[in-house]
Amino acid sequence: MSLITVGTMAFDSIETPFGKADKIVGGSATYVAYAASNFVKPVQQISIIGDDFPKEEMDELRRRGVHLDGVEIVKNKKSFFWSGRYHEDMNSRDTLVTDLNVLADFDPKVPDSYQGAEFLMLGNLAPKIQLNVIQELKKRPKLIAMDTMNFWMESAMSELKIVLRYVDMLIVNDAEARQLTGYFSLVKAAKAILTMGPKYLIIKKGEHGALLFQDDEVFFAPALPLEDVFDPTGAGDTFAGGFMGHLAKTGDISFDNMKRAIIIGSAMASFCVEKFGPTRLKEVTKKDIDARVQQFKDLVSFEIELV
Amino acid sequence: MSLITVGTMAFDSIETPFGKADKIVGGSATYVAYAASNFVKPVQQISIIGDDFPKEEMDELRRRGVHLDGVEIVKNKKSFFWSGRYHEDMNSRDTLVTDLNVLADFDPKVPDSYQGAEFLMLGNLAPKIQLNVIQELKKRPKLIAMDTMNFWMESAMSELKIVLRYVDMLIVNDAEARQLTGYFSLVKAAKAILTMGPKYLIIKKGEHGALLFQDDEVFFAPALPLEDVFDPTGAGDTFAGGFMGHLAKTGDISFDNMKRAIIIGSAMASFCVEKFGPTRLKEVTKKDIDARVQQFKDLVSFEIELV
Repeated sequence: MSLITVGTMAFDSIETPFGKADKIVGGSATYVAYAASNFVKPVQQISIIGDDFPKEEMDELRRRGVHLDGVEIVKNKKSFFWSGRYHEDMNSRDTLVTDLNVLADFDPKVPDSYQGAEFLMLGNLAPKIQLNVIQELKKRPKLIAMDTMNFWMESAMSELKIVLRYVDMLIVNDAEARQLTGYFSLVKAAKAILTMGPKYLIIKKGEHGALLFQDDEVFFAPALPLEDVFDPTGAGDTFAGGFMGHLAKTGDISFDNMKRAIIIGSAMASFCVEKFGPTRLKEVTKKDIDARVQQFKDLVSFEIELV
Repeated sequence: MSLITVGTMAFDSIETPFGKADKIVGGSATYVAYAASNFVKPVQQISIIGDDFPKEEMDELRRRGVHLDGVEIVKNKKSFFWSGRYHEDMNSRDTLVTDLNVLADFDPKVPDSYQGAEFLMLGNLAPKIQLNVIQELKKRPKLIAMDTMNFWMESAMSELKIVLRYVDMLIVNDAEARQLTGYFSLVKAAKAILTMGPKYLIIKKGEHGALLFQDDEVFFAPALPLEDVFDPTGAGDTFAGGFMGHLAKTGDISFDNMKRAIIIGSAMASFCVEKFGPTRLKEVTKKDIDARVQQFKDLVSFEIELV
């Protein structure tokens, strides 16, 4: 089954305690595509770039079965640029520069060839843009998932609440879940979010794993304890890409299959942080992924007989 | 098999965002005993109290199979007193008052009736006192576990490093593991600690669960996502009590059984935080504990076929 992913394709400059990377390829849709393309073809990309975006990167994505018909290329303009510096704990960062560039005019169109897709991943964008994409689809996908961030809660909360009514799943981090609901307890926040529209909710906790909620059910996926987190940029999008990629591959949106998907997403995210940008995601093979998933199984498997 | 637990029996005054509790019973050995006595008898307590410590609390502990021969009662003196205030995230707190009282003269003796115990849990105390207890034992226990804290790393690091050579397992929180080793990465910190003496290491991460390390193996136990954490005081000691209680009950110190023990410890800790002090621990039944352990199984269980 096919997966549409909407989001940024961009340049990032990143500083971590381990080093610096200047103007490397990034963006939410880029990470989603690199992760998801391990599991499902086609991944149908919707984004906007300037004519500075590297042709080799586009070729590499195409080679992996990513369709780029929905990627608008704006002549004589620059791609979205973000620059940030991570703190020692790698869970927090300061944004140094945000140059919207082409993103300021992003008005995504769904190409005819994408119509009929069963899965839709709406990356972190203005709620209005997210809603437009949903409304452009002639047939409602089997599962619509969306990401968002604090910026939209502060500047466009009413639009955000409208989009939430149209989606099946929200994927946010713990701080965002708290800000969206006003609850500090993630269990209370989850209950509140599940009344806003989404039937499913994932709360990402970075190095502390992720929680999946549906009705009264909850599942916890750990993050792999890593010796070094080299660069966390894109880890959340990579997680979402692995998650949606597995769902789209199997076409199964049962809670049990979402558990598998969240482990696969966590495994992909654990690769992402090992090198700057999407570098590591371009290297990993099916064998690497299987071995990493096995590590997650070993990490949390235990046997208790209750007598 | 029997379990010796050494630590404080005390009074605590606690403020949380949910309320206040004034001068309630606490202390590391109290929590360890309440948790462990669900699994193993006898729990053999070593502590020191003033004559202000409630007789009913001693009777309740005895009723649960806790031996108190090793608890010294000092006439006309007060029990150790701690007072603290938790921040909204419940993971951090300010200490308001620490009155050592009888604890200033704590020089624990191991009663003859305790000799031969197979398991020893050394609560957070001066490293010198922890070492004294180990040296008082005529037969080395099958497993010696110890807790410690930042205070001893700052004031008695060299003694602490000596005790570490005599124990099998260290149980600390993430901040303590970082401070002890100078590594921010918990995986690196764990590797370093496993060269200092202990063969096993547990790193507690509060609401983010706990990690168990041995050689190159690692196991992760989540914390149960709770709607309200009412009072975290004693949760770490309750965790240790459930963990050591299960090991002492089964006499099995294999890595697989330690996984079970860490889940049981986490289950006990999840009860502890539901009410002020050890209140909730006095109420729970075997049926409650089994149901809670089942919740942990459900929380992390998933099936993935790697093909």
